[in-house]
Amino acid sequence: MKVMVGGTFDPLHDGHRRLLDRSFELAGSSGRVVIGLTTDTFASRKVHPIRPFPDRKADLETYIAGKHYPPNWLIEPLSDRFGSAIESDFDAIVVSEETLPVAVEINKIRREKGGRKVDIHQISCVLAEDGRWISSTRIYRGEIDVHGHVLQ
Amino acid sequence: MKVMVGGTFDPLHDGHRRLLDRSFELAGSSGRVVIGLTTDTFASRKVHPIRPFPDRKADLETYIAGKHYPPNWLIEPLSDRFGSAIESDFDAIVVSEETLPVAVEINKIRREKGGRKVDIHQISCVLAEDGRWISSTRIYRGEIDVHGHVLQ
Repeated sequence: MKVMVGGTFDPLHDGHRRLLDRSFELAGSSGRVVIGLTTDTFASRKVHPIRPFPDRKADLETYIAGKHYPPNWLIEPLSDRFGSAIESDFDAIVVSEETLPVAVEINKIRREKGGRKVDIHQISCVLAEDGRWISSTRIYRGEIDVHGHVLQ
Repeated sequence: MKVMVGGTFDPLHDGHRRLLDRSFELAGSSGRVVIGLTTDTFASRKVHPIRPFPDRKADLETYIAGKHYPPNWLIEPLSDRFGSAIESDFDAIVVSEETLPVAVEINKIRREKGGRKVDIHQISCVLAEDGRWISSTRIYRGEIDVHGHVLQ
């Protein structure tokens, strides 16, 4: 199956890892995964500083290499919410609870343009030790680490 | 992965087939699929007549046997919207666009009860030849057949 997933992935935390793992699982051994990585300009909307695109890309590559996933994957720059997801031919998009509305919107636009809708796979959020979601903002604030361990 | 899916499956049309195929694909060779099949009482809410549970169950079994899916699957009676999905330990629920809200509600209740949320996989609807959704109601009305071919 051809799968798309997107994000800023900074820092790469356990929620991102689940998102990536599920994408590769869904794609299967003969499938393909396209990872949209937000550009520095697009990512600058975030409330906290973001590391440069090449650093975030390198971390993704290291993570994926370590998992020995099939080689058919690609990181492409994501300069808006949709990236290539409107025009591309693919089968499923993997999202978090937060980004589910974007996937629903992508399907709506695809259909309006005469294309076919894709499957939407929403992963369940990964919880930190304190029972709240792991998020980059919480990690940046120093509340938790990338695995959701409470630091304060 | 342990996957749950539910429906009335009468008659078993190409939309149902996609729902089942995706469930087994997601479960993988070592996973498990639990199919909730609506009881005759629960299914009687539908606007058109429904064949008895044993007939619908037999059709599901024939379809699954023909696909040579891994043996770890089970059909259980579904006597309300949730069935065993609130209490069961599983990883993902597979739904159509119509039943996505039920899955979101299941996750909400699971969390309120102190359980963990599950992944939600929404399949894209299968379109009939006329570009509208395949549905049991349309088949019952004689507009299309189970593969979405227009009959009138």
